[in-house]
Formats: sequence, structure tokens, C-alpha cells
Amino acid sequence: MRDKDEYIIIVGCGRLGGHLASLLSEERKSVVIIDREETAFSKLSEDFSGFTMEADAIEMETLIRARIERADVVVATTDDDNTNIMIAQIAKEIYQVPKVIARLFELAREAVYHEFGIETICPTVLSAEAFRDIISGSDRREQV
Amino acid sequence: MRDKDEYIIIVGCGRLGGHLASLLSEERKSVVIIDREETAFSKLSEDFSGFTMEADAIEMETLIRARIERADVVVATTDDDNTNIMIAQIAKEIYQVPKVIARLFELAREAVYHEFGIETICPTVLSAEAFRDIISGSDRREQV
Repeated sequence: MRDKDEYIIIVGCGRLGGHLASLLSEERKSVVIIDREETAFSKLSEDFSGFTMEADAIEMETLIRARIERADVVVATTDDDNTNIMIAQIAKEIYQVPKVIARLFELAREAVYHEFGIETICPTVLSAEAFRDIISGSDRREQV
Repeated sequence: MRDKDEYIIIVGCGRLGGHLASLLSEERKSVVIIDREETAFSKLSEDFSGFTMEADAIEMETLIRARIERADVVVATTDDDNTNIMIAQIAKEIYQVPKVIARLFELAREAVYHEFGIETICPTVLSAEAFRDIISGSDRREQV
């Protein structure tokens, strides 16, 4: 994957979306982050150098304005599984975005995502496993 | 650390606490999970073989009833940082529980925990890093 001018669209500027956008911006990626609420963007780091877009990503026009057709990566991190899967499917099926990743709350739906070639991250599972690794004394990552 | 009869107290049976308790129970650890709401325990897996305790862990009596003095591990996973730090400090300072881990929302408070020898996990940071690793194509863990 191209690294230099990789173009990433993040939908949802909650705690997770905001932190991810800030991380990627630090790494000098081109990031656009979309949220329905202007106030959500206060979660971005002060150094955030990407673009913010106050709009509803469920509306196709928003994604078109965000130039989804040239996105290398689309990440759906809203706190609603239905919204995330809808955006992920639009990105994958209609715009053939190479990499599509969605946050997932209900593990039961995982298979649906994978059918469509959408990668998923479930923060609950990830965190529970990190706790479990610390408890077993086998944690390989730095404590955060 | 003893593995066979390791005794683990988890405070908070939200999505994360519930999932962790179920994971540990699968691994045949002795687990007690505490929550103020009886309904919270519906998040536990059907096979959960530990104990549930409907009580407020902020009250010392609850922790005493949970036999905190013999706990090997105390995990604070409520969705309130203040509650988590209070329980973690009681466990560490008063009961000298060997391993104390708290879920953390506000990273700014991390130093306070570490001063007390409390390990922390911030699900937001963990998840953002997992997304970042997938985006950079360097993810080492299975997608979940």
C-alpha cells in the first residue's frame, strides 16, 4: 500500500475515532474525519493536521464530498453497529475502497462483515484479552 | 503466581467486565464478579462458573464479603474512572492485593495509577492502535 499520500476517511469522532485520527495525523497520513456533531472534534489532538467534516456519513452525498472514490482506507468507528456496517458496505461494495475496517460491538455479526471483506475490531474483546494477558503474566505489550 | 486456585475479583459487569469474567472462567480461574445491577450479569456467558455479587463495590463491606483479603487479582472495569481508581487503591494499599488492574478512560490520570503500582488498560488507546496496525498492514493479532 502507498504510504506517502495514503488517504484515510474516518467516520465517527468519538473517543476512539478521535484518538485514531490523531495517531494517524502524527504519522503524517492524510486524514478526513466525519462526525454529525461539531463538538465531537474537540477530542482531536491540538496537532491534528487533517480535515474535519460536520455531516452525516449515512448520506451518500457526505461520502462523495469526502472523496471516498479516492480513499485508500475507510474506518467506521461510530458507536452504532448498524451505521458502521452500512458505511463499510458502501465503501467496499460501491467504491471498492481497498481497506475497510469497522468497529464492532456485537461479535455475533462478525461473519457478516468478513463475508464482505470488511475487517473488524471489537474493543471489548481486545481489552478483555489484554486484561487476561496481564493476569496470566503473559502480556507482550506495554501497559497503556 | 499460583495458577490453580488463583482468586480473581472483577468489579463491574459491563460489556468488558462480563467478557473478561467469562474468558477467565473458561480458563478455570476462580472468579467473583460484582455489579450494582442484577441485570448486568446477563452479559456473562452461559458457561460462567464463578460467583456473582449484586452489591456496591465502593462500600468496604462489599469487598470484605468478596474476601478481598485473599484475592490474587482485583480488576476494576466500571465505566467510571473515579470508581476504578478508588477500588484499585483500596485493593492495593489496604489489602495488598498482588495484582491490581484498572480500566482507564482519561489517559491523563495514568501516572496516578502507576504511582500506586496499579496497572492500567485504556480500551480506546488499545483499539486505536489495533486500527492503526491494520491500516499500516502491520497487525500481528488475529482480527476479532
